[in-house]
Amino acid sequence: MRKNIFIVFAHPEPKSLNGALKDVAVERLTRNGHHVVVSDLYAMKFKAAADGADFLDRADATRLNYMEESRKAYEGDTQAPDIIAEQKKLNDADAVIFQFPMWWFSMPAILKGWVERVLAAGFAYGVGQFGNGRWGDRYGEGKLTGRRAMLSLSCGGPPWQFGVRGVNGALDDLLFPIQHGILFYPGMQVLPPFVVFQARRQTLGDWPSLKALYEQRLDNLFTDAPIPFRLQNGGHYDDKQVLKSNLGAGENGTRIHLVQTGDPPQRLP
Amino acid sequence: MRKNIFIVFAHPEPKSLNGALKDVAVERLTRNGHHVVVSDLYAMKFKAAADGADFLDRADATRLNYMEESRKAYEGDTQAPDIIAEQKKLNDADAVIFQFPMWWFSMPAILKGWVERVLAAGFAYGVGQFGNGRWGDRYGEGKLTGRRAMLSLSCGGPPWQFGVRGVNGALDDLLFPIQHGILFYPGMQVLPPFVVFQARRQTLGDWPSLKALYEQRLDNLFTDAPIPFRLQNGGHYDDKQVLKSNLGAGENGTRIHLVQTGDPPQRLP
Repeated sequence: MRKNIFIVFAHPEPKSLNGALKDVAVERLTRNGHHVVVSDLYAMKFKAAADGADFLDRADATRLNYMEESRKAYEGDTQAPDIIAEQKKLNDADAVIFQFPMWWFSMPAILKGWVERVLAAGFAYGVGQFGNGRWGDRYGEGKLTGRRAMLSLSCGGPPWQFGVRGVNGALDDLLFPIQHGILFYPGMQVLPPFVVFQARRQTLGDWPSLKALYEQRLDNLFTDAPIPFRLQNGGHYDDKQVLKSNLGAGENGTRIHLVQTGDPPQRLP
Repeated sequence: MRKNIFIVFAHPEPKSLNGALKDVAVERLTRNGHHVVVSDLYAMKFKAAADGADFLDRADATRLNYMEESRKAYEGDTQAPDIIAEQKKLNDADAVIFQFPMWWFSMPAILKGWVERVLAAGFAYGVGQFGNGRWGDRYGEGKLTGRRAMLSLSCGGPPWQFGVRGVNGALDDLLFPIQHGILFYPGMQVLPPFVVFQARRQTLGDWPSLKALYEQRLDNLFTDAPIPFRLQNGGHYDDKQVLKSNLGAGENGTRIHLVQTGDPPQRLP
């Protein structure tokens, strides 16, 4: 079935490995019958810094409260045009792929700026009811439910240094603020990341097998199982949004937020 | 003793809580006899996106390898002037404070861009020997040793939602990519963060006690114990940089990288 796929690409060099992987995705997904849209943030010179210029009609021109202005502008249709354009691409998408090099254990600043500006208040956060034990619709709920998201990234180091005992910290832990805090937060289902380790050591000889591995992931974009993050409002957290004491046994890091075998089923209220 | 303190401030609104905390730091540290320098990234319109314009004399003008160009420009003194100016402030500093709002569980894009551009190859990464079981001077070693670093940040949510069972993930885990991966990596000692939770709920009535709490932390900037991250080359990791099997008992998240009571002493080679 024809799906809409949105690729957010953040690398300054089109002829990079990241650029090549972005091209593979466009080609493969298009061949598979899907419709693909790319935001090439560097080529677009996407504005990275969230500031008062993001709002065409400020509620308070003397003091910037970014969240309040963001909500007002989102609801009143007075956001900067580049923000509106990206939100439309997100709304239209069935799946979103983020292609970027891991820089300093996170996404490039230009992509972080995209997150801050595009994921507006009332759109991606501050959604739903707050108060009386409700903390909004987030972590599995929100306006971006029904969409899948996947990180496709390169790392400089070898895989074992991103393992559970590796010196850099476990990759799942390093990506948790992004995969859980940015993608799952507004409701997207997050697929396991596609990762190229030791990116600078990749040779032309490595490329065919790397390309094939990525194509396999792209072919399974709508069938692979997402990371089983717990729903905020599915019954696993109490009304202060703390994990109930009978859950998460044996875990003490970010893995505590993954559903375990034998956990009670989650039900949205 | 008079020290040099460098504050990197990233908030678009000077009249914000973050702006007020930055001002408190300047005032208190100056009163304590120190010399304080502030980089107000928004006021400076600091360039957030790392790209080819960061290098005045490209080695390869047709294809950008950011790391290689960064090293060449750092060593050849052909970095963009704003990068050089920030590196000088870092070099001159005995302590660095990062004042920012947590946005989407990380630092604002403008500050991430500062990290990517200022922490150049040959300066903050790619330092020391590589090969034969050596993976450079990093994680407690490097050119920024002898400096202390502290995050001072605001969060929207309440503290229990950033606890070890809180829905957002534990704050230590969320900050690990920054505190371990950005600050400890080039050799700085990292102090526990100063955090204002539920920042939007703070009232003028809360301010005096909040200010006093922060002043206490500032007074102890050079005496508080840093986070006991393990040294990469101190003997706790093997020659592939994986934590030795007799260490980290009982932990399976980012806490595995903290020295525990009873661990063997660390020794740099």
